[in-house]
Amino acid sequence: MKQPVKLGLIGLGTVGGGVVKLLEKNRALIEAKVGAPVELAMVCDKRLTPERAKKMGVRCAFTRNAEEVILHPDIEILIELIGGYEPARTFVLKALHAGKHVVTANKALLAKYWGDVFEHTRIYRRLVYFEASVGGGIPIIQAINEGLAGNRITKIVGILNGTTNYVLTKMSREGMDYPTALKEAQKAGFAEADPTFDVEGIDAAHKIAILASIASGTWVRLSDVVTEGITHIDPRDMQFVRKEFGYVIKLLGIAKLTPTAVEVRVHPALIPDTHPFRTPSRGRHGRKASLCFE
Amino acid sequence: MKQPVKLGLIGLGTVGGGVVKLLEKNRALIEAKVGAPVELAMVCDKRLTPERAKKMGVRCAFTRNAEEVILHPDIEILIELIGGYEPARTFVLKALHAGKHVVTANKALLAKYWGDVFEHTRIYRRLVYFEASVGGGIPIIQAINEGLAGNRITKIVGILNGTTNYVLTKMSREGMDYPTALKEAQKAGFAEADPTFDVEGIDAAHKIAILASIASGTWVRLSDVVTEGITHIDPRDMQFVRKEFGYVIKLLGIAKLTPTAVEVRVHPALIPDTHPFRTPSRGRHGRKASLCFE
Repeated sequence: MKQPVKLGLIGLGTVGGGVVKLLEKNRALIEAKVGAPVELAMVCDKRLTPERAKKMGVRCAFTRNAEEVILHPDIEILIELIGGYEPARTFVLKALHAGKHVVTANKALLAKYWGDVFEHTRIYRRLVYFEASVGGGIPIIQAINEGLAGNRITKIVGILNGTTNYVLTKMSREGMDYPTALKEAQKAGFAEADPTFDVEGIDAAHKIAILASIASGTWVRLSDVVTEGITHIDPRDMQFVRKEFGYVIKLLGIAKLTPTAVEVRVHPALIPDTHPFRTPSRGRHGRKASLCFE
Repeated sequence: MKQPVKLGLIGLGTVGGGVVKLLEKNRALIEAKVGAPVELAMVCDKRLTPERAKKMGVRCAFTRNAEEVILHPDIEILIELIGGYEPARTFVLKALHAGKHVVTANKALLAKYWGDVFEHTRIYRRLVYFEASVGGGIPIIQAINEGLAGNRITKIVGILNGTTNYVLTKMSREGMDYPTALKEAQKAGFAEADPTFDVEGIDAAHKIAILASIASGTWVRLSDVVTEGITHIDPRDMQFVRKEFGYVIKLLGIAKLTPTAVEVRVHPALIPDTHPFRTPSRGRHGRKASLCFE
């Protein structure tokens, strides 16, 4: 059997905790695909206590000091799951500099510091993989980057943010106003205490910027994404367009790519009730993410 | 700039000719993703003449002798597009033995000689990529193999053969009987002169065997795929189930995966008229391939 691939993980929140559990649960499956044992060598979280580590199913070494993971000599791949711009950027760049590959779900980091991150991957000849940053369970990043590498993608349209989709669905189906629907989403655990990034469209802007960047092969800067959120939507408007025209309002990320320009925007849009984005998924509140291509 | 990646191509039919054209047309895009120049060094087809090579847009060296490509010292990656079991198997194994990576769209080869092919990749530490073997433009292989590597897939269902889908659509919509619909498909260029592999479900069996193999991490042998084609379907039955129950008949590939068993079959199935597989695509005759997962 080959040498084990050793992983380090920073950020033991909902996603990080899930990674720890899935690595354990699907170990045989993952190791068969990797062709080598896969071992979580050390995890880090700034609020980690021995009790919490135990509760999260952590069986390896743990620390509150990210540097210990980043500079750990045995760790080949750093999994960054703390989210946000900083200190995630510092950690990721430091890990690349230290010769680690990086796996991250951090769309904010990538959208804002794309240039920095990929300059480091080139200089230190490391890889940054970020499949989970956009579209969650939809394997879209590698599909664009590799599977469709020979294709000229001209348009990407998607519902890219689960929180706003939940809020809009509540408003549309139950006639709630925006503040009430947001409170419901927070109570149900679908919206964070500070929902600004979601409801102002910034999270969706991060994601469509990443998709547009990989599809176009150029860095689409966040400042170039025309962004409008959902805070001003009135449930009476939703009912009007539904009754009169059979339309629903969804927050869409849209990228149009021509050989000379990339136009990227996020805004609420009217879509016909018969559109595939409207097909109910198995979730209670519509799909978390839906994407289509041309 | 890096050293160019040199490619060799065997099989200059419809698919091979398309590859030559797309490599030229989307060169800048492809080279940006690869991070190096990509150069077609030599192509081979057993019926190739200088006139035909010119007509196909071939600008590099060409030959009718596959060995010349397979053993070409500069070629790193062999693209095998001749299809069928032999001599494709001999060529691919020889190329791996000669230290080349292989890209192939050959589902027949993979389904039948999976064991041979991947034993060679292990021994000679080469890669075989086969994204185009199943689902055409749907980047499904890498999605299962890498994007969803940590997921336990329990079911795959798909319409996997374009010819039979065309024939069934003709029968269903226009009330044609099977022989007439098949002749139409041949006239329109959707079915080959010898349509056995398609209409007997063998092509779909190849494809679902490949999907089940990568999803389960075990080799699903062709002989284990219960296979039934479309040759005995009566258009009157189609009209009856449609009128009475709102169902249509589609040839489905189905794989059910449990931790202890993999059950794989191909047969005509009744699906409700409202199923996503029924959603008309932009093509004239329904989707060429449709897939869903659990």
